[in-house]
Amino acid sequence: MKLTKQNSIEKTNQVYDAIVIGGGAAGLSAGIYLQRYLLSSLIIDKGKARSVWMQELHNYLGLPPDTPGKTLLKQGKEHYLTLGGDLLNAYVEEVTDEGETFLVRVKVGRTNSIYVEFRAKYIIAASGIIDHLPALEKMQNVFDYAGYNLHVCLLCDGYEMQDKKVGVFASSESAAQVAFSLGWFTPYITVFTQGLFNVSYELRQKLNEHGYFLVETPVKQFLGENHQMSGVELEDGSVVNLEAGLISMGSRYHSDYLQSIDLEYLGGNLVTDKMGRTSHPRVFSLGDLKVGMNQVVVAAADGALSATQIWRDIRRQTGAKRNLDRLAA
Amino acid sequence: MKLTKQNSIEKTNQVYDAIVIGGGAAGLSAGIYLQRYLLSSLIIDKGKARSVWMQELHNYLGLPPDTPGKTLLKQGKEHYLTLGGDLLNAYVEEVTDEGETFLVRVKVGRTNSIYVEFRAKYIIAASGIIDHLPALEKMQNVFDYAGYNLHVCLLCDGYEMQDKKVGVFASSESAAQVAFSLGWFTPYITVFTQGLFNVSYELRQKLNEHGYFLVETPVKQFLGENHQMSGVELEDGSVVNLEAGLISMGSRYHSDYLQSIDLEYLGGNLVTDKMGRTSHPRVFSLGDLKVGMNQVVVAAADGALSATQIWRDIRRQTGAKRNLDRLAA
Repeated sequence: MKLTKQNSIEKTNQVYDAIVIGGGAAGLSAGIYLQRYLLSSLIIDKGKARSVWMQELHNYLGLPPDTPGKTLLKQGKEHYLTLGGDLLNAYVEEVTDEGETFLVRVKVGRTNSIYVEFRAKYIIAASGIIDHLPALEKMQNVFDYAGYNLHVCLLCDGYEMQDKKVGVFASSESAAQVAFSLGWFTPYITVFTQGLFNVSYELRQKLNEHGYFLVETPVKQFLGENHQMSGVELEDGSVVNLEAGLISMGSRYHSDYLQSIDLEYLGGNLVTDKMGRTSHPRVFSLGDLKVGMNQVVVAAADGALSATQIWRDIRRQTGAKRNLDRLAA
Repeated sequence: MKLTKQNSIEKTNQVYDAIVIGGGAAGLSAGIYLQRYLLSSLIIDKGKARSVWMQELHNYLGLPPDTPGKTLLKQGKEHYLTLGGDLLNAYVEEVTDEGETFLVRVKVGRTNSIYVEFRAKYIIAASGIIDHLPALEKMQNVFDYAGYNLHVCLLCDGYEMQDKKVGVFASSESAAQVAFSLGWFTPYITVFTQGLFNVSYELRQKLNEHGYFLVETPVKQFLGENHQMSGVELEDGSVVNLEAGLISMGSRYHSDYLQSIDLEYLGGNLVTDKMGRTSHPRVFSLGDLKVGMNQVVVAAADGALSATQIWRDIRRQTGAKRNLDRLAA
């Protein structure tokens, strides 16, 4: 059921089999599998899964290639709720390992917030990443185009940028290297450093050899209309026309709530085995938060794998049901 | 485009970037990703992907839980074709490693068959498994119920068997052990050996302790109507009433065409790295054919991973496009 500020307190005495942190593709798929394994679960979703931004999912098997990310998430939430799962819109502040269980401290409501504590045997961390976007004066201006023709994922949207004039918005020398992978799809590339880093001689040379442009003057604003970005205006007033953009500014891993638990990380990503288990046997990590490829369908598969492993763990501990009627006869 | 007996000969002079063997969830997802990476691909599908049998996919994120497996496959084929991929209904006889390329020998058409040869740089083996079903006198009778309430996948359909009277149709002592995993969902279990193997004292004992029934008389036929199996009639004329069935008779790996290539297997499954690469650097394996969990969403993710790895390989070899207009200026 959908939990709210009013009724969530009723669930604080129950120990869930698993609490899933994050209601994106990974978390919802995990929730669907958990419920179908007859395990009790709670998904805590702060909203704004990365796939919310995707105006069209072009590469998810089974859905028409113009399906918005939102539609996938909405369908997944409905599916999960019909299976009897609990879902709460809230922000997870901290997870504490109590030994047999985890204590999950949650802030519900942005205004007049209340704090609620839930318990679970297993934690599934599926809270993903938050992309860094160009920090322009009017951020609204970025959000006008993000997920339309201003992309954050080369693997997902390279195809959409084929032979187009594309601006790469990079925040570091290494982030700018994506230009050469984008170069598989189009040769019409301009790299914008936004004045955030010094460009090495080697990179300058390599861009030149490929015929790619380099702009170091900071960007003032994106230009365009109807969610279609058509270029940028620079701080010096000049305009660069573009047909698409690729933001390569890194991302923040949304896993602060796990800091009291000793887990193995690799560059911000949680290290897991092939079933999603982290270095803690009862903490799993999925989707963009774990080491691996950031794709919706991979996140959905991660959910299936981790839920199955948790079911196997619990099932092996509990054993099979006995036919008591027959045994009594 | 859809290839046919008539036009497939036109494609025999081209070297595809990848030929995908199998048009199930894994192969179609791989094809969609390959085409979106601007690679050329051909999917060769013999038909009858395992998911065709699924009357309802209950656990695939993004699709309503009553979506037939067929619908997913149909959507995937259309998606792939709109991206310009080639698709041929045919049977792959043999794949030969020629060094730089693979030669794929294909039989097209069940009657008046013709033989055609295609070439590709990479092979994606996504041809899955074929379940062994009870070999009754009238096999049609099995197909009446398979995929409805006669299941082959405990992970997928355990939920549908909750607290139901379920018959487990096993072909060996080890295959019969699935009864104790099924025992998570229901305690009302009858194991049918169909007279195919001798039951050990230990298994007999364990079944007894759980209150599960054991029937060693061979099954004559399934009973039921409108695709709902309601029990079995045994060879001795007696009837056992059931509400669902789980077939646990193993499966055949559909990978004979790879026999001339030296690949690492584990109990019939191809061993791969996390991107789906086998022990041959240009042969990938996905879905049910590789070591791992047989789930549609996992197969779809496998397709994304292998296609991405092949793209990375080819992209690194080819390098980025140069902006020749600017370089000439």
